[in-house]
Amino acid sequence: MMEPIFKNISIIGLGLIGTSILHAIKAKSNKEITTYAYDINSKHRDIVVEMGIATFVCDNIQDAIKEADLVILAIPVGSMKILANSIGPSLKEGAIVTDTGSTKSSVIEDVNPFIPKNVFFIPSHPLAGTEYSGPKSGFGSLFENRYWLIICEYETNHTRNLAKFFQNLGSIVETVSAEYHDKILAITSHLPHLIAYTIVGTASDLESDLKNDVIKFSASGFRDFTRIAASDPIMWRDVFLNNSEAVLEMLQRFNEDLSDLQKAIRKKQGKKLFSFFSRTRSIRKKIIEAGQN
Amino acid sequence: MMEPIFKNISIIGLGLIGTSILHAIKAKSNKEITTYAYDINSKHRDIVVEMGIATFVCDNIQDAIKEADLVILAIPVGSMKILANSIGPSLKEGAIVTDTGSTKSSVIEDVNPFIPKNVFFIPSHPLAGTEYSGPKSGFGSLFENRYWLIICEYETNHTRNLAKFFQNLGSIVETVSAEYHDKILAITSHLPHLIAYTIVGTASDLESDLKNDVIKFSASGFRDFTRIAASDPIMWRDVFLNNSEAVLEMLQRFNEDLSDLQKAIRKKQGKKLFSFFSRTRSIRKKIIEAGQN
Repeated sequence: MMEPIFKNISIIGLGLIGTSILHAIKAKSNKEITTYAYDINSKHRDIVVEMGIATFVCDNIQDAIKEADLVILAIPVGSMKILANSIGPSLKEGAIVTDTGSTKSSVIEDVNPFIPKNVFFIPSHPLAGTEYSGPKSGFGSLFENRYWLIICEYETNHTRNLAKFFQNLGSIVETVSAEYHDKILAITSHLPHLIAYTIVGTASDLESDLKNDVIKFSASGFRDFTRIAASDPIMWRDVFLNNSEAVLEMLQRFNEDLSDLQKAIRKKQGKKLFSFFSRTRSIRKKIIEAGQN
Repeated sequence: MMEPIFKNISIIGLGLIGTSILHAIKAKSNKEITTYAYDINSKHRDIVVEMGIATFVCDNIQDAIKEADLVILAIPVGSMKILANSIGPSLKEGAIVTDTGSTKSSVIEDVNPFIPKNVFFIPSHPLAGTEYSGPKSGFGSLFENRYWLIICEYETNHTRNLAKFFQNLGSIVETVSAEYHDKILAITSHLPHLIAYTIVGTASDLESDLKNDVIKFSASGFRDFTRIAASDPIMWRDVFLNNSEAVLEMLQRFNEDLSDLQKAIRKKQGKKLFSFFSRTRSIRKKIIEAGQN
């Protein structure tokens, strides 16, 4: 039974994350929580009506947020500014606004100016997802045992309540700074996605026969990359536009390492290759030990 | 019940592939098949003795091959030459020799000179594996529904028998040329592994605090890469040394595509990023349709 920390919750954006939050609230709460759902795409709203996972699906964004104690923006980071601008004046006094975007410095810059003095914006990011998107892709256990990062300098009653809410959805909560978040995500998520998109793109440019056989004989490495590269293109366009500095820095380091390996292959330096391929195993071991495999 | 196409089978190399073949033969055959197992590492031999998956585990490689109608070399491609040289004179007349290496042109060049006139070398490659290695990592269903490529110019009774044997292990068999195989594998397997090794290597060079948090918060993209980069370093060193030409060619194309994306991020070209990220989805769709996901 979820303690009703927030009685009226607004979910803006009904994709994988938004609908998963609705599923999780519905599965875990008693009827004391009222949820208001909104998506700019009316087809997505219709699907959520049909699924019956929200108390109210609103056709108007103001109706979806004006009663809410907690507003969750589960939309691409590139849409945060225009959305914050549109909801700012209608937010309820004392409400908490959070978001689930994959870049945090940009979201703070985009959202903060539109948040009224008596409303509290606390950015956050659940480290959870799949390669699927859209309202039908959500499921209630998405956040189970996954980290949900809250961006704040120091704890307050508001950040503690938000943390408790995320914990009730199944998450492990940690707090980090926006800048540090963006650096970590650049290497753990943004760069891997960029690389996966690149290699699948390279394959899709191959001559037609070879390309068909690449698809047919996609061994495990490439198959994994195509899964990553099947993620929502709008979300990822926005991520790279909004965390470009950290991504470009990590990309530069990556390129230097790749050049080294390229040279080692060309010069047939077996010892160098072996030593490089050996040291990467220890990181995998640590990830398995950390229970995040 | 497996038809005993080959009554005496020798498995050289008791890692993931070698022991999986032993498991599969044991699970599917009646007692008419005798298996002879050998590994240069005596500890691996001891483990296979303990597991009881081979009829005989031989301490001497000559004993392991001299009676065999089928000899399977499941060893790193860099060891093929020295091994072929050592077993060549002891191979039984009429025997078939195959291998399971990930590079084919190099293996043909390394093995063929040591194969006697009355023995038939038919290279092959099962497109199956995991990130685990060693004799305990094998399992009998590894080849189920996975392609096993046979390298030959035209079919003979020998290639047909070998295909039937692989089909009995659960595989789908196709024939390709060595050069074409090496090109396909460069993009579907070798380049993805190189990239995964690189990015995990880049992460392991980060400052200690950041590195620990990267491990802790390894989101889905990076986690997948660490799995790929946990593969056997000797096997992969040998792959890159022995398929360097095809890998370097694909790597060049990849680098060009990555530079394009890098520029698009730096110049904040949203349309270009979106269009690139959209077209990669169709390859995933085709892979799912092909049942190889």
